[in-house]
Parts: sequence; structure tokens; C-alpha cells
Amino acid sequence: MARATLTISSKNYSSWSLRGWLLTRYAGLEVDEIVVAPDDIAARKELLLMSPSILVPCLRHEGATVWDTLAIAEYLNELKPKAGLLPTDRVARAHCRSVCGEMHSGFANLRAALPMNLKGDSPGFRIWDRAQADIDRVLEIWRDCLATYGGPYLFGANRGMADAMYAPVVTRFRTYHVGLDEVCGAYAARMLAEPEMVAWRNAALEEPDDIEELDMEF
Amino acid sequence: MARATLTISSKNYSSWSLRGWLLTRYAGLEVDEIVVAPDDIAARKELLLMSPSILVPCLRHEGATVWDTLAIAEYLNELKPKAGLLPTDRVARAHCRSVCGEMHSGFANLRAALPMNLKGDSPGFRIWDRAQADIDRVLEIWRDCLATYGGPYLFGANRGMADAMYAPVVTRFRTYHVGLDEVCGAYAARMLAEPEMVAWRNAALEEPDDIEELDMEF
Repeated sequence: MARATLTISSKNYSSWSLRGWLLTRYAGLEVDEIVVAPDDIAARKELLLMSPSILVPCLRHEGATVWDTLAIAEYLNELKPKAGLLPTDRVARAHCRSVCGEMHSGFANLRAALPMNLKGDSPGFRIWDRAQADIDRVLEIWRDCLATYGGPYLFGANRGMADAMYAPVVTRFRTYHVGLDEVCGAYAARMLAEPEMVAWRNAALEEPDDIEELDMEF
Repeated sequence: MARATLTISSKNYSSWSLRGWLLTRYAGLEVDEIVVAPDDIAARKELLLMSPSILVPCLRHEGATVWDTLAIAEYLNELKPKAGLLPTDRVARAHCRSVCGEMHSGFANLRAALPMNLKGDSPGFRIWDRAQADIDRVLEIWRDCLATYGGPYLFGANRGMADAMYAPVVTRFRTYHVGLDEVCGAYAARMLAEPEMVAWRNAALEEPDDIEELDMEF
């Protein structure tokens, strides 16, 4: 049986790639990474146009092609139920999917104003009001989850789907020096210290700099 | 046991409300509808700001609060597995979730340029190039699904999650007179003739007109 593959793009800029990659790690599925080179002009152009011919992340596994982050999470959850990507409790599971869905389709102002950029460091960054409203909502979700399920991860003792979905936001809060309260700050610090996050960040820092001018999320 | 409730907003404008509502119908779950009145100034303002204090659609059922469309679909699929919201085949199910996820997070140009408006009728509507690219991608997805699974619905004999996710697009194609090939046209015509779609449209046509100036998707 061929190994699974995960197609991703820039580790510095692509928040969706980070989510998909973390999900495969949390699930314990071995994948070969296929990186759409950010210095490939044609690939970059297609990414910029958000052309569907390159949709990342994309998981290929035993005949299945899964090109959306939530679809990847559900696929991995079926494949590796013991990994605990989703809570076992019905109500908690619905809650988890709701906050994941909210991240998946929402927070447009946060995405636009504070793009993921692991190489970046912007102290004193000025946050637009509507981006701040998105940030406030993210922190409200975190506080609610951490209080309800007792931490240290969003839905309790296991890292899972919600942590992967919010991981890029954790990096944005560091890049743009967003002030966090104690509870949210502790969660963000824990996530940033996870070995997978450290490995991803180190790879991002080694990426060539020729797409530094890009400030969009893809 | 209290009956389930589904909170929705305008039947004329709210594409997400239509998706959530169709899902409950397809699943056969009886719900009481709670409509956030589009003529309620405070509610409209909050919707316009996309405030999280009113997230629609929102399903409440036996202790669970589910406020995202995909989360509602997964919840209903677990609750009513025999309804066939998702394909039973592993590869088809991953495919279904991928196209649903793509609609959930994407097609921003289509949403912005051709907002859902069931009362509207715009022959000769001029379609912006990037909205056309989104339309082309939707039709590519439909053709691929209809050819792969044999129709008449996107994933075969059962109406399901993908049909609900793409239902608002079907109405947009009618409102803006988007030309369709024979295969896609037949699918769109079938969807528009479904009793649930007819019932929703009739309710939309009876809504008061005082939010006609709104042209955003909420």
C-alpha cells in the first residue's frame, strides 16, 4: 500500500497547510509531504488566484482525495478514532465542530489584517477595530472551552481538531504581539511549545524569502 | 423532551439559514423555527457586523447547541444515520465533505457578486470575471459528482449534505440568469422543484421588503 501524501504550501504563510499538517500528526498518520514550492511562479500565481487546481492542504490516502481541512479532520477521525481528534461526548462533539466551523468560514477581518507569518515580528502593531472584534471572539471561544472542559487543550486532555484549527491564530498572536489574559496566554504558550509546532516553525524560518511581499492568506 | 429549535434569519437573503433548514428537513428532524426578524433593527445591525451573539443557523437539540452549518450536518448525520446525509462509502464520504468544505470556506467572489435574493430577478446580469471563475468551479464540482455517482443528486440517489450546501447557489443561478449546460441545468431544475425548496421560496417571497437594500450575505 502506498503511503499517504499531504500536499501543503508555504510553512511560513499557509495557515490551512498548518492545520492539515497538525491534524495528520495528532492522528498519528504517517504522510509524505508534497510541498507546492512557493518559489514556483506558476504555482504562486495559481495560489494567488485561489485557483481550485491547487487546493491545499490535500490528503491522499488509500483511494481517497480529501482537500478541505475539516474534511481531513473528519476523515482522520474515522480512520483513527482512538486519537481523540473529536470529543467522545455528543454535546461536546457538537460544540467542537461548531467552533471549528466558525474558524473555517469566519474571522475574515482577522485573516486579512493579521496574516500568518511565522518569520514576522511586529511589536506595536496597530489592530483595526473589526480585527479586534474577531480576536475578542477567538478569546471568548478559548475561555469558554478551557473552562468547560478543564484544559489544558480546548476540549480537555487531548489535542484535537479544535486545537489544530486555532493553531495559526496562536502564531498570529505572537507575530503581532496581541495581549492575552492569563488563561488564554497559558494556552497559547503551551501550543507554541508543542514539538510539532516547533518543528513547523523551524521549517518556516528556513523558507526562502522571495515571497515576503505576499500578505494574503492562502 | 423539548422539541428541537432551529434559529434562522431572512429566508430571502440568508443562504446559511437555507442550508441549515434543508439539512433538518432531509434528516427528518422536527424543529421549531425561531426567526431572527429581519425588521428588528438591533438584530439586523448585529447580523451586519457578523456579531457572534447571533450566529445563524443554530440548532438546539437535547442539550446540544450547534451553530455552524457543517457542524449541524455532522450532528444530524450522527442522530439520523439512515437519512443518508453523507455517503456510506469511505471515499465518497471524503469527497462529499471536501466539496461541502470548499463551499463552506470558499467562493467569496460568487457570494459577494451574486448574493442570494430569492425575490430578485436580474436578466442580463453582468458577471465579474472572478465570480465567473467561482461559477465555473461550482459547475465542475456538480458535473464531477453527477457523473461519478450517477445522480440525480450530487452523491447519488439520496438528497444529502452536499445538495443542502449548494442549494443557495442553485437559487442564485436562477436569480441572475446564469447559463447552465444540460447536466447542471437538469440538476438545478430538480432542486428548485423539490417541495422543501418551493416551501422556503414561498416563505421568502412573503417577507417584508424593508431590507431590500441589503446586498451582503449573512
